[in-house]
Amino acid sequence: MKKKIIVQKYGGTSVANTKKIINVAKRIVSCKRKGNHVVAVVSALGDTTDELLRLAGEISKYPSERELDMLLATGEQVSVALLAMALNELGCKAISFTGAQVGIMTDSSYTKAKILDVGTGKIKKHLAENKVVIVAGFQGKDLKNEITTLGRGGSDITAVALAKVLKAEMCEIYTDVKGVYTTDPRIVPEARKLSTISYEEMLEMASLGAQVMQARSMEVASKFNVPMHIRSSISKEKGTLVIKEVKDMEDVLVRGVTVNKKESKVTICDVADKPGEASRLFEYLAKAEVNVDMIIQNISRTNKSTDISFTVENKGLRKTKKVVKEIIKKIGAKGVKYDENIAKVSVVGIGMRSHSGVAAKMFKALASKKINIEMISTSEIKISCVVSSKDADRAVKVIHKAFGLEKKR
Amino acid sequence: MKKKIIVQKYGGTSVANTKKIINVAKRIVSCKRKGNHVVAVVSALGDTTDELLRLAGEISKYPSERELDMLLATGEQVSVALLAMALNELGCKAISFTGAQVGIMTDSSYTKAKILDVGTGKIKKHLAENKVVIVAGFQGKDLKNEITTLGRGGSDITAVALAKVLKAEMCEIYTDVKGVYTTDPRIVPEARKLSTISYEEMLEMASLGAQVMQARSMEVASKFNVPMHIRSSISKEKGTLVIKEVKDMEDVLVRGVTVNKKESKVTICDVADKPGEASRLFEYLAKAEVNVDMIIQNISRTNKSTDISFTVENKGLRKTKKVVKEIIKKIGAKGVKYDENIAKVSVVGIGMRSHSGVAAKMFKALASKKINIEMISTSEIKISCVVSSKDADRAVKVIHKAFGLEKKR
Repeated sequence: MKKKIIVQKYGGTSVANTKKIINVAKRIVSCKRKGNHVVAVVSALGDTTDELLRLAGEISKYPSERELDMLLATGEQVSVALLAMALNELGCKAISFTGAQVGIMTDSSYTKAKILDVGTGKIKKHLAENKVVIVAGFQGKDLKNEITTLGRGGSDITAVALAKVLKAEMCEIYTDVKGVYTTDPRIVPEARKLSTISYEEMLEMASLGAQVMQARSMEVASKFNVPMHIRSSISKEKGTLVIKEVKDMEDVLVRGVTVNKKESKVTICDVADKPGEASRLFEYLAKAEVNVDMIIQNISRTNKSTDISFTVENKGLRKTKKVVKEIIKKIGAKGVKYDENIAKVSVVGIGMRSHSGVAAKMFKALASKKINIEMISTSEIKISCVVSSKDADRAVKVIHKAFGLEKKR
Repeated sequence: MKKKIIVQKYGGTSVANTKKIINVAKRIVSCKRKGNHVVAVVSALGDTTDELLRLAGEISKYPSERELDMLLATGEQVSVALLAMALNELGCKAISFTGAQVGIMTDSSYTKAKILDVGTGKIKKHLAENKVVIVAGFQGKDLKNEITTLGRGGSDITAVALAKVLKAEMCEIYTDVKGVYTTDPRIVPEARKLSTISYEEMLEMASLGAQVMQARSMEVASKFNVPMHIRSSISKEKGTLVIKEVKDMEDVLVRGVTVNKKESKVTICDVADKPGEASRLFEYLAKAEVNVDMIIQNISRTNKSTDISFTVENKGLRKTKKVVKEIIKKIGAKGVKYDENIAKVSVVGIGMRSHSGVAAKMFKALASKKINIEMISTSEIKISCVVSSKDADRAVKVIHKAFGLEKKR
């Protein structure tokens, strides 16, 4: 019988030091002993990436992105070599590869490259020789043989892409939490670990601020139906399975509550209230690569002008301010206001598709605690409300309770 | 007129932190402003390599050499990326490459690979675009696309090899000393910096313990007549030129005095004094990859047996002891003695070829200070004496003085 392939991804905290690397090696050996082939994808040790960024920052405020990728790719290369040594030490044959070596081909968008193709020949050859194959996460090479990196959460993407091309039985994502929770347990101690979640829900939750996985890797997993298991690297307990939507998932109205405190609200005041004005505004923002999240246009105060509000990530706020300053001149707006003290609280669940009343229940819960809603946005499977950041945790608590998420099902 | 190419090599101490990297970048810019093309070869930051070895050591006593090279090669990759950023920041176009990317092709002897071929296409292309090309020292790849490293002093070898294939005007080796001295200035404060030295002399001095360059890179430089300039990375002062022997170099009897305190003496007692017995001994040692330096066979005490002494590097001593234990059984020797308290003091100079009396002068100098000579070995351009390690510095001083090396010529 042909052996099954398990892809395991270990994040930076799981390989923060040599002791933890040895633990990861033991975990891999135990999976292999159960009769599986193992392909391990590893991130850089602990805060190596931040440390490298600090060095780059000491030299240049805006370092060349090509050189930044050259620099950052070393982090994972260190991890894979050390993990291979740890496996050898346990008597387990293993071989490590950089992304470039194993054939993770990407486009040439340095620091945020997209995977174009993944080679399998080398991996299959070494698996057939009964080795554990260890691949550096987060990195690849472009067609000109230049080193590229995949951006935040890049190691997850590497793991999912490998699981797809290798037709892996499972893509296991090892992390420092035990799985996906109904909400952040640091805010709501009664938060429950979910045993399953659909790709779409996980994707929304990741986009909305759940830290456990990056949205981009979930998109890939969802597109190719890669079965995933998000679990703890220090416990043997089962984590959360991310799978294709199944019928009885719809019975659950809301799967989880997320909160994102890393956005700010921008309000452009007195924009001429005529067709095309708002689109011009967002065209300029898009051209300047400012990622806008929620948008609302307030009811026109006079017949002639209106206020437009949108949210942006805090880390892009400085750039946004620069761009907006120019834009308001061009479109003849009166002014701009910034509010950095906001939080976006969201509920997610594919059950919403077939049930109504979720929004009403959420608004009622917020009202019961006198929490003011500043902006609202909805999609088929999520509802988001912007509230004042001081109300954020209270909002999460009351919503979590309103939907009875703490109860076992 | 075609621009001249200067290859500059910066060691780990020259790029120990970002401040030093910025200084190196300034140095490169100044060389480029003089109308040269610059190819920079860089080592790993400060003690990065030792730090990586420490991590490997925590995981495995004898890590796989393939994985060790995978691990160590990251050190130089960090340096080249940071140096490229520093050059960009100064408004100078620059691009960094790993050894593998630039086409440093080696054999597959991990941790001590030999360069087979060096690609020039990529470098020439980017030089023609007026960029500084930065190459990671110490590393390459083999024909199977595996990362290899060149062993101790590997960055020097990379620089010399590049200077050769690029037909560089000069290969500048930047280091933390101002050049090559008549002897170690820490031992003899009057030691003089040499303005020129021949390849052969430099090769002998490096082999005999002068720390400034590795012997292997000098072999390559000598073979291909690569002109070298060994100089300080923090001073603008000229250093020492390493060049082909010229006629008037012979007027100087002795160029320098070296001392090596990192060897031990091994004496195999009562070896049967018959033809082939010594050769068997050294065959066994060679098979076990024990590098033997000096050898002397004492005068037979009886007609039947003799003592054989040789020196080995201290870092190979443990292995030597293990091997010798087995050998003395096989060749029927009576026993073995070890002396770790020795030092090898040597004089080097191509003038010796055409002048006699150097050995006599050296022995006389040692005798004047009642320093006992335990072993002697000579070559065409050097004479080495093993003395007790407690006498080493005094020996260097008296020899340096006897040959008048402190005097300007």
